[in-house]
Amino acid sequence: MLTIAVDAMGGDNAPACVIEGTVQALQESDNRFEVVLIGQSDKVEPLLAAYDISSLNLKFLHAPEVVTMDDIPATAVKTKQQSSLVKGLQLCKEKQADAFVSAGNTGAQMAASLFVLGRIPGVLRPTIYAYFPRLGEGLTNIVDVGANVDCKPENLVQFAEMLTIYQRYGAGIEKPVTGLLNIGEEEGKGSETLKQTYWLLKEADSKGKINFIGNIEGHDILKGKASIVVCDGLVGNTILKFGESIPEFLGSLFKSSLEQLMASGRIDQSTAKITSEMFKGMFEPFDVEKFGGVPFLGVDGISIVGHGRSSSRAIKNMIYMAEHMVEKRVNAHIAEVLNEK
Amino acid sequence: MLTIAVDAMGGDNAPACVIEGTVQALQESDNRFEVVLIGQSDKVEPLLAAYDISSLNLKFLHAPEVVTMDDIPATAVKTKQQSSLVKGLQLCKEKQADAFVSAGNTGAQMAASLFVLGRIPGVLRPTIYAYFPRLGEGLTNIVDVGANVDCKPENLVQFAEMLTIYQRYGAGIEKPVTGLLNIGEEEGKGSETLKQTYWLLKEADSKGKINFIGNIEGHDILKGKASIVVCDGLVGNTILKFGESIPEFLGSLFKSSLEQLMASGRIDQSTAKITSEMFKGMFEPFDVEKFGGVPFLGVDGISIVGHGRSSSRAIKNMIYMAEHMVEKRVNAHIAEVLNEK
Repeated sequence: MLTIAVDAMGGDNAPACVIEGTVQALQESDNRFEVVLIGQSDKVEPLLAAYDISSLNLKFLHAPEVVTMDDIPATAVKTKQQSSLVKGLQLCKEKQADAFVSAGNTGAQMAASLFVLGRIPGVLRPTIYAYFPRLGEGLTNIVDVGANVDCKPENLVQFAEMLTIYQRYGAGIEKPVTGLLNIGEEEGKGSETLKQTYWLLKEADSKGKINFIGNIEGHDILKGKASIVVCDGLVGNTILKFGESIPEFLGSLFKSSLEQLMASGRIDQSTAKITSEMFKGMFEPFDVEKFGGVPFLGVDGISIVGHGRSSSRAIKNMIYMAEHMVEKRVNAHIAEVLNEK
Repeated sequence: MLTIAVDAMGGDNAPACVIEGTVQALQESDNRFEVVLIGQSDKVEPLLAAYDISSLNLKFLHAPEVVTMDDIPATAVKTKQQSSLVKGLQLCKEKQADAFVSAGNTGAQMAASLFVLGRIPGVLRPTIYAYFPRLGEGLTNIVDVGANVDCKPENLVQFAEMLTIYQRYGAGIEKPVTGLLNIGEEEGKGSETLKQTYWLLKEADSKGKINFIGNIEGHDILKGKASIVVCDGLVGNTILKFGESIPEFLGSLFKSSLEQLMASGRIDQSTAKITSEMFKGMFEPFDVEKFGGVPFLGVDGISIVGHGRSSSRAIKNMIYMAEHMVEKRVNAHIAEVLNEK
């Protein structure tokens, strides 16, 4: 049976949401795996007491320290060895757990994952991707979304290769399609780095490691032109955060439009209610909590990172993602493909 | 009286839309300026004949060649000297016109503007900015949006300085606010270029050239945290094109939601109509045609660039923008500030 270590202290709504999500995952999956919940006993145990956990595959492990959102990533790993973050990753390292899940400080989790678990042989830099809404079926992932800036062409190519493997084996996409995010479609466009990356991606394509469709532009993302959008972390992080701000921005425009229409008597309460539901429904493709979180690709172990705002549902889905990463042997495939000549 | 040269052949809907917009500008402004419309006589003159232009300050200048969207920027300037693009800019150079307006090939316009007009003394690289929607009052401009990639810190600082001058003198914003688009707010974040840029922007702030509020992130753009968002053209171009694709993406989600609601009988035709109007109204802040186009900042002359999709209304507003740039003496202010010690 798989064992998943869960950071009870990670996230804006921790530990309450984390506990709730963990209990839900075990109940819903009928105890398909075991969870080790790690955190400060005085914070976690009183909340755990509210659930009947006697029938669940749930263990608790005390960790006296907590890595907060304000901790400096590189320092936190060294100064907070007794934190839930470091202890959880150590369980993985010592093979007492198969995967680790946290919605805490992303930078610290990245640093600690690298420090404790190391890189898969052949990986230059591990990376983080994100989910993006798209028209129609399928999946769009953007890589890198902030773990790496000043990426070299070789880094960007590895990101595409690793995400191709994830989408193929982890997400069941038969033919993941890679596009290089650029200022124009023509070859020869963009920065010096992107020009070189273009040719390296072509080469990776000719070796069958990826399916490269060339340069794509900002307006191609939502259209779903590529399932893998490759860019430097500076671009990906900006697009990701910009995208996350859209529902709130439009929600505010929607609210004032609706208030105007109601004040003028053009629509009544019940229509306003239907319209509001419709508006909410429209943003369903923006709901990334259904994926919960993402694995750090390239780390020699499974470390799933979630949004600080994660709800219990997101935590539950992160646990499933961890299970999925173990079962689909994504890391073994990455090691294999990256070390092919 | 000012003379504005207008490229009749520039844009997806040229020359019809350009002619219509030009006539509207002259009628609406009561012949406040003179327009020289430049293009192929066999294409333009038959369309012009549909208007009563005898009372308008409108001249026509024949240009046998046309720079198309497919022309390579650097080549077009040299091989198509008899194009409306090059002839229009030459009118400016020879002081027969005060400004030039085009909705054609942006890259070619940039190259030709540099080639024919040159740079304002002290300017390292001219730039293009774009308008962005924001919550509440005010204005958000992003610079650079694709004219420059691989920007050096000195370039990014000049972009902020030039746009500050434009917003102050051209747009009447008393205190333009500059933010550096980055992956986090803390100083020391981001690429090597951004780290250096941060300190140069601080320095420009201490000299009173700009008002710098530090690093901002992708989610701060729509919130209107800064009136000037500074970034490399690779980031700005991606965000711009991504932003432009949002109304269509959401429109498509809206349409299918509405169809579902109507099919289930939850709303009737007339409510659907009101809801559709409301949805359209919500995207009013995304309407950048009210600004028409933007000037190339840093070019020694006035060259206004518009979107290829420009309507007649956008063309009209571009002509007003050209007039405005001349009257507010934006270029003189740029020369002054950039050459201060």
